[in-house]
Amino acid sequence: MAKWIEGNGQYKDVVVSTRIRIARNLDNYRFPHKMSVEESERLTQEILDVMKNIPSDVSYKFYKINALTLTDRIAYIEEHLISPGLIQKPDHSSFLLRDDEKATIMINEEDHLRIQVLLPGLNFEEGWNGINQIDDFLEGYLEYAYDDRFGYLTACPTNVGTGLRVSAMVHIPCLSMIGHVDDMIRGFNKIGLTVRGIYGEGTEAAGDLYQISNQVTLGEDEEEIIRKLKNVIYQIINKERYVRDDLLKKKRYEIEDKIFRSYGLLKYARKISSKEAMKHLSNVRLGKEMGIIKDMEFKQIESLMIEIQPGSIQRIFKRELDDNERDIMRAKHIREKI
Amino acid sequence: MAKWIEGNGQYKDVVVSTRIRIARNLDNYRFPHKMSVEESERLTQEILDVMKNIPSDVSYKFYKINALTLTDRIAYIEEHLISPGLIQKPDHSSFLLRDDEKATIMINEEDHLRIQVLLPGLNFEEGWNGINQIDDFLEGYLEYAYDDRFGYLTACPTNVGTGLRVSAMVHIPCLSMIGHVDDMIRGFNKIGLTVRGIYGEGTEAAGDLYQISNQVTLGEDEEEIIRKLKNVIYQIINKERYVRDDLLKKKRYEIEDKIFRSYGLLKYARKISSKEAMKHLSNVRLGKEMGIIKDMEFKQIESLMIEIQPGSIQRIFKRELDDNERDIMRAKHIREKI
Repeated sequence: MAKWIEGNGQYKDVVVSTRIRIARNLDNYRFPHKMSVEESERLTQEILDVMKNIPSDVSYKFYKINALTLTDRIAYIEEHLISPGLIQKPDHSSFLLRDDEKATIMINEEDHLRIQVLLPGLNFEEGWNGINQIDDFLEGYLEYAYDDRFGYLTACPTNVGTGLRVSAMVHIPCLSMIGHVDDMIRGFNKIGLTVRGIYGEGTEAAGDLYQISNQVTLGEDEEEIIRKLKNVIYQIINKERYVRDDLLKKKRYEIEDKIFRSYGLLKYARKISSKEAMKHLSNVRLGKEMGIIKDMEFKQIESLMIEIQPGSIQRIFKRELDDNERDIMRAKHIREKI
Repeated sequence: MAKWIEGNGQYKDVVVSTRIRIARNLDNYRFPHKMSVEESERLTQEILDVMKNIPSDVSYKFYKINALTLTDRIAYIEEHLISPGLIQKPDHSSFLLRDDEKATIMINEEDHLRIQVLLPGLNFEEGWNGINQIDDFLEGYLEYAYDDRFGYLTACPTNVGTGLRVSAMVHIPCLSMIGHVDDMIRGFNKIGLTVRGIYGEGTEAAGDLYQISNQVTLGEDEEEIIRKLKNVIYQIINKERYVRDDLLKKKRYEIEDKIFRSYGLLKYARKISSKEAMKHLSNVRLGKEMGIIKDMEFKQIESLMIEIQPGSIQRIFKRELDDNERDIMRAKHIREKI
């Protein structure tokens, strides 16, 4: 199970997770896309040397991308512990993962440093504090690329300024059922927010999960960005909850049927694709949210949503599996967990 | 549970039931479609008087169609205890049902008497003996319409001669899966056999169940008719078994998946149509036949196939249900039984 899922977030009936990440670069190195392998190694070493000074009550493990199997790289992405961008240039990139897996320091993704804090439920305060702690610590030892007018400098102009991206992953099956999601996305885009699939930019929405995040990093301060996003997430929570109540009132049997059929299928299928499994896990999560499914915890359902992904399922069974084998082993794993 | 399902028939992996029925008419009455209510009552009374002489070790209950609720009439049809034809003219028709429900004497269906014996599995011998016993008994007291050249006279010429229809209900999901059923039906038609859905003439096949019966009643003696049908049923048994083995060898996971998904759906659905339920019960029966489903008996599955029908489900819950309620109560009943 991904460790970051442990713990008590708020509004878990709608908000799966809160993620805050900042982009930072060092003054005396070229941006990653211009960097040689030697330069990236020097940068990595400098960061590792700094990390020796962290307080003794926390500890990080260090992973070089090119030392991981392809399966493991993908599994870390599926767990949301690293970004897809980090494995694009394996010889340049690495990451430090805190033991509780709630914080990752990525080295040489698009920027020299991408620091993320990932927490279950809605939890911007703890997330923001966590990020600040790591950021303040690193800034004490490293020379950040910073411009008085623009703020933090980044490889891509969309991150310049605060370098901050805050996001919440929401589960909105009922807004999706009534066909409200597309409208919602258009509305958010107009106010500088982005809606993405579960694995970030360019990925498809699966399991009625959507990542809502700020688009703008320049011209607004951090607290303002977080406050604005939080307000929007509260609106989503209220709307989704309203539609759930309404559907339960008007179509109780249909909803229960949908949920229990998915539960039964997951409990008995002998072969299942990740796409189909996500659909049914989404229904089961809705069942949990509505108090209809009682024998499963949110963290169990969310772990399964990760564990059924192609990389994770191969890591669980400790070998490479072709498509057909994956579908079989996925069904087996789900049966063992439900 | 329909009582006739109890008992050990042969070849239950393919043959659900064996049914033998004979059509008989009395000499001194007009055929039912020409009969007045008074005349039909006189005929019924004559038969009831005869029935007082039956040996004391068997007993029959008498039911007048117009004394039954519509729900009960339909439920008796769904249990295969009476034919759909019997309820067409409720004021004329009635039936005597033996306590073990394996024999019915229908009065004023298309003919004055339609006598059927219904047994689980493949069991032409016991069926034929059972029919003969009843027929011999009745013939000892009643004047049958009989012609030396044509044999027994019947209302419809397709029954003249022996008045005999023997049929077996076969479950052939694998022949159906490989698309072999239409060819099979065409072949059987050429040799004087008829293939029908589960509720006889004009009904649709459901749950991969087909009734195979003789078409010809004239010019062949009874033993010959039975022998011929039995041979064909043996062929079907062999073919279906062969395809099952083959599919299990080549597509084990796909077959197991199909079976267990159906099992899971039936175990958890909160709303289900009879058509969908039949499809999944057919898959579960296949699972039992293949040794994949171990915690259900054939008679349980077959009872469910009857109990989920519209009339039976209303009888179980002792009240009239609209379509929507039926789907809900059907799902509830299935969950309680699986």
